[in-house]
Amino acid sequence: MEKYTVGMKAQMTKTISESDVYLFAGITGDFNPLHVDAEAAKKGFFGKRVVHGILVTGLFSAAIGTKLPERGGVFAYLEQDARFLKPVFIGDTVTAVVKLVEIINQEKKIWKLSTEAFVGSQEKVVEGYAVVKMIPESG
Amino acid sequence: MEKYTVGMKAQMTKTISESDVYLFAGITGDFNPLHVDAEAAKKGFFGKRVVHGILVTGLFSAAIGTKLPERGGVFAYLEQDARFLKPVFIGDTVTAVVKLVEIINQEKKIWKLSTEAFVGSQEKVVEGYAVVKMIPESG
Amino acid sequence: MEKYTVGMKAQMTKTISESDVYLFAGITGDFNPLHVDAEAAKKGFFGKRVVHGILVTGLFSAAIGTKLPERGGVFAYLEQDARFLKPVFIGDTVTAVVKLVEIINQEKKIWKLSTEAFVGSQEKVVEGYAVVKMIPESG
Amino acid sequence: MEKYTVGMKAQMTKTISESDVYLFAGITGDFNPLHVDAEAAKKGFFGKRVVHGILVTGLFSAAIGTKLPERGGVFAYLEQDARFLKPVFIGDTVTAVVKLVEIINQEKKIWKLSTEAFVGSQEKVVEGYAVVKMIPESG
Repeated sequence: MEKYTVGMKAQMTKTISESDVYLFAGITGDFNPLHVDAEAAKKGFFGKRVVHGILVTGLFSAAIGTKLPERGGVFAYLEQDARFLKPVFIGDTVTAVVKLVEIINQEKKIWKLSTEAFVGSQEKVVEGYAVVKMIPESG
Repeated sequence: MEKYTVGMKAQMTKTISESDVYLFAGITGDFNPLHVDAEAAKKGFFGKRVVHGILVTGLFSAAIGTKLPERGGVFAYLEQDARFLKPVFIGDTVTAVVKLVEIINQEKKIWKLSTEAFVGSQEKVVEGYAVVKMIPESG
Repeated sequence: MEKYTVGMKAQMTKTISESDVYLFAGITGDFNPLHVDAEAAKKGFFGKRVVHGILVTGLFSAAIGTKLPERGGVFAYLEQDARFLKPVFIGDTVTAVVKLVEIINQEKKIWKLSTEAFVGSQEKVVEGYAVVKMIPESG
Repeated sequence: MEKYTVGMKAQMTKTISESDVYLFAGITGDFNPLHVDAEAAKKGFFGKRVVHGILVTGLFSAAIGTKLPERGGVFAYLEQDARFLKPVFIGDTVTAVVKLVEIINQEKKIWKLSTEAFVGSQEKVVEGYAVVKMIPESG
């Protein structure tokens, strides 16, 4: 099993397309005009359609679930806290960065990760943390 | 504008299909074997493929964004905290319940909602809260 | 049970994306070049790709099925008549408006609704009517 | 140009999958529990989740748009009338049959087609008609 150490990082970058937003609306049922009504969005507060915040947090799930080394186990999500600092728009390129910040329980393999998302290299759009538990691959 | 009062509730129910999980994986990139590898999942801790926790929180976004009365504005997500208590499996019918529990700032229209998801009528699978801000429809 | 009265309305607005049209083609198999061949469409009568008319009528189904108050029952579609007055193009923002115009059978809860779709606020693109029957939630 | 004659037929068969129904819900926003809530559907009038009626009419669009001979033009939908006779369930194999029943306007190439859908070979689930206009491929 690989060794997990505080400070270990992983990241995931994706340009969020209109189809991503529309499929997310389609999966969850969130057809708020902010996301799927370009005319209302144009006249509204943000001036254009906004990506669902929860969709962006899905990139944390992806970075944790596929980019952290995972020999010996897979991660079960125990908690995700996310503060949405700025809107993300269709066409924005989002980088989700997860970093192991605390080993909550060494034996039970429960860890806390910081979760941050950026548009471009500077602008932080989401911050928060996740708590995950490594579970053995065969139960 | 409609009046929003503490205790106001909305809910959203959906049977989570395999296609939901696969599209969510496709949008976010979270191809963790827990979600998309039926063979590994069968041998693993949970015995079958698990729905992405973040997908379930998307139902909170839908309930807030489309089921709460929204004349006079739409809601911007400021925060979502979710603790994943139990796994949700493909084929489970999930009910997401959101309830306005606190008016954080009356003037700025910032509210806190409890967010809970259930499988069936009894089993709570996710709990946490959201903070949203009502924004005017024309800025 | 809520009271349904003639004149009661509901509406649903969505900007129709390319991905909507492509998924609809994928579900139904309607790969007519009018919808999925941008080169042929550019040289053709309308000058660009046209949204499937039936996809637009799906917004009536959504407005009836999710925006009309539905305590005490859900609606079964008995009939949909739609006349397609003008083409809808990818990127157009469509508003589907349904209005209860006649109680056909009070006891059996069969109603007739006008169904109209607009691009922008003025241009009517589809008109017709639906007949629905409220069915009890538990049979 | 091929000759179109009254009686000319085309058909299209597809087994309607859960993913078809879920994607259709996702495109249109029709998340009525009849379609996406397996628990409510089980306790409800029909006993299981029902395919959106409008989705089934999309097969007429496909049969007309891709199975009728179309040298010299493509078809623009002018009208679709559909009566939903019986519910279609997820997993049902539906055959949509379209038949040219009347040449409404020879010069303008406006035709009327009967549109019928069957589950299996016997059970008619949708009936109605479409009116289409052949438009030249280059305008």
